[in-house]
Amino acid sequence: MMQTDAIQAANLRAVDLICNADPVLIDVGRADEVLAGFSGRVIAHAGPPVSWDGMSTAQRGGVVAALLYEGWADTPDAALALMASGAVALRPNNDLGAVNPMGGIMSPSSPVFVVKEAVSGLIAVTTLVEGRNPAQRFGSFDAATLERMRWLRDVLAEPLGAAIRATGGIHLREIASQAVQMGDELHQRNLAASSLFYRQLFPALMRVPMTEETRQSIVDYFCVGNEQFFLNLGMAMAKAAMRPIEGLADCTIVTVMARNGVELGIKVAGLGDQWFTGPSGTVIGTYFPSFSAADALPDIGDSAIMETFGLGYFGLGAGGPAFGLLGVPSQEAANARVDQMRKITVGANPNFRAPALGSEAMPCGIDVRLVAQQGIPPGIATAIAHREFGVGRMIGAGLAPAPLAPFQAASAAITERSASATVAGS
Amino acid sequence: MMQTDAIQAANLRAVDLICNADPVLIDVGRADEVLAGFSGRVIAHAGPPVSWDGMSTAQRGGVVAALLYEGWADTPDAALALMASGAVALRPNNDLGAVNPMGGIMSPSSPVFVVKEAVSGLIAVTTLVEGRNPAQRFGSFDAATLERMRWLRDVLAEPLGAAIRATGGIHLREIASQAVQMGDELHQRNLAASSLFYRQLFPALMRVPMTEETRQSIVDYFCVGNEQFFLNLGMAMAKAAMRPIEGLADCTIVTVMARNGVELGIKVAGLGDQWFTGPSGTVIGTYFPSFSAADALPDIGDSAIMETFGLGYFGLGAGGPAFGLLGVPSQEAANARVDQMRKITVGANPNFRAPALGSEAMPCGIDVRLVAQQGIPPGIATAIAHREFGVGRMIGAGLAPAPLAPFQAASAAITERSASATVAGS
Repeated sequence: MMQTDAIQAANLRAVDLICNADPVLIDVGRADEVLAGFSGRVIAHAGPPVSWDGMSTAQRGGVVAALLYEGWADTPDAALALMASGAVALRPNNDLGAVNPMGGIMSPSSPVFVVKEAVSGLIAVTTLVEGRNPAQRFGSFDAATLERMRWLRDVLAEPLGAAIRATGGIHLREIASQAVQMGDELHQRNLAASSLFYRQLFPALMRVPMTEETRQSIVDYFCVGNEQFFLNLGMAMAKAAMRPIEGLADCTIVTVMARNGVELGIKVAGLGDQWFTGPSGTVIGTYFPSFSAADALPDIGDSAIMETFGLGYFGLGAGGPAFGLLGVPSQEAANARVDQMRKITVGANPNFRAPALGSEAMPCGIDVRLVAQQGIPPGIATAIAHREFGVGRMIGAGLAPAPLAPFQAASAAITERSASATVAGS
Repeated sequence: MMQTDAIQAANLRAVDLICNADPVLIDVGRADEVLAGFSGRVIAHAGPPVSWDGMSTAQRGGVVAALLYEGWADTPDAALALMASGAVALRPNNDLGAVNPMGGIMSPSSPVFVVKEAVSGLIAVTTLVEGRNPAQRFGSFDAATLERMRWLRDVLAEPLGAAIRATGGIHLREIASQAVQMGDELHQRNLAASSLFYRQLFPALMRVPMTEETRQSIVDYFCVGNEQFFLNLGMAMAKAAMRPIEGLADCTIVTVMARNGVELGIKVAGLGDQWFTGPSGTVIGTYFPSFSAADALPDIGDSAIMETFGLGYFGLGAGGPAFGLLGVPSQEAANARVDQMRKITVGANPNFRAPALGSEAMPCGIDVRLVAQQGIPPGIATAIAHREFGVGRMIGAGLAPAPLAPFQAASAAITERSASATVAGS
């Protein structure tokens, strides 16, 4: 197949499936219990496949944290030696149905949010956001980072799961839809969505038996300095919405866009599980005091699932409160960027409209052919990690273009298939 | 005085005082303990002075609720008889330093938020918002309304006050400033501000000793269907910000704009405590299913302190998510209304900017002379109460123009004073 008519029909159907997806947060579980085949000595990471030797510093640091946390190693050096021995397998999160921000390291006992797309029944998974710097997702493996990782697993996960189950499921798209009207583009700004989420969670959470101390620590976790809390949930929402089109014949829409700090990789609905990769971009934006571009790791994280779904950079005009951090000079500049994304997308998502974007629906469904033909790379609104091993901090945020190479390669693969189909059919 | 130069200087100084005011929520108290001279058989109400016989139905119903709640009467009929006897005094909230929404009935044992303007040390007070329909503020005196009033006083007030004191004070302008960037115009839309407020409150609230049942009921109160929670706090913030200019010589800026369902009354900074009144306007907007304009009470409530301060209708362009309810057809229409308000205001408040308003500061400081000269009435974005005695429900929301008469009368009083000053000085 892969004829133009069939492609068009498949792409329109895909946008329909994406826009009508209803991702519902249903539970908190352990990664190795929720994800098929994720057990034994295996570590999952953001972005396309990568070897231990080829891994970026932020991911290597996150892996060290994971090995200490899992008890597979007692010291950072022992962790590095274990990884060098090849005894621990590495797998991309996206190949497992998961998405995680920045380094995105997930290990078997990581607590995870479980999001079910109600129409298809498909599941997407994400780790619990850690909170502020330093953090495993930026490559930290210091004592405070490990302590918080254990707190998430050993203290938070169980009552949080109980509360979520007691709500009967939290419809994430409804929260996201409201939040984009409230200044969240839902990648680099998530304050409204986080706050709206707590309103739905807290009544149930207050009915879960726990000690006063535990309750206090949990409420502090949500309310003190965790403005990006909803990012992970938004990512799982986006992943859950994209899963129904994975493998859709003839569809040329990008289903995955993810970076490991070295490469950005994409998958395309009609091209199966194949990754197409190119070099991770440089993030241009704003640095926190005392940091500069010289300290920055290239673009990293599965969080570009937000753009793949049609938020983040694709809804940048909604994110006025985040413009300063992202280095966006004005509302007009933001809206112009969104309009540029309309040139490489098949449709628009009526669930996401922001007053500052003229209430137009945000562009949705990146057609890999349009990116290749027009030479317009998808943009990504993202955080910047420190490049030095062990620092494990966010040092700023900004905008990064995706590399064109993977889109060109995927587009060529589609042309090739069309040609073979024509020959076969002639 | 009241010469043009002196007026101009006073007005600029007034806008400066309003914009730099720093209203801090410091406590919860009882109305009769916080407000000087508010004890014995006295009831406070929204809007300008009104007699029992002249009161609107929503206020009469709210008064009946207050008398039952205070234990001054055992039945609604007994409450009506007591009021008819003249044994209970009526006073406008604004004359006491208080502001309350809709009917705005406040009685001696009402629990109140205490807001202190940090620069001047002046206090403003407001009741605790009740939550959804039916409610005393709309004129209800049914059993559920009374039960909730008692719960606010007997269950919520003490731990809430303890939590607020433990925070060291919550700076309301910071919350309001963020919220207007998130789609709240802070009169008819308060979801962002309410949600941001909980983030600051809950960590402290979780540390106040109370039973599980009490904690659950309090968290439910905040999180379930109480999207307008912040309105009362926003009103006290606005009142606290206006108090420093009350009595400011030569200042022609409106300090109070309040409605009792029959009349709208204003006060002007340089004209002391005098009320100027005119008929309450008709609210044009959207009705909930099964209701129409025939069911509507005229414009009512002290909540027009939001517009007096420079939010609500004066920042309407920020409130995209509320446009549907308010009957605003488009962002452009909203922004045009805000621009109209710039013609009757002295300055703009740099703390309040919204992306959808082009990030321009919102107009602030209504000059009573400009209203009279230009014939442009201040607009008010407001809820609509049912007109029938005892129904006690909100039936819609919309926009109402203030009557011009009080502004014309106040402006004339200023001209008169200027003339006498000129004669005296010549």
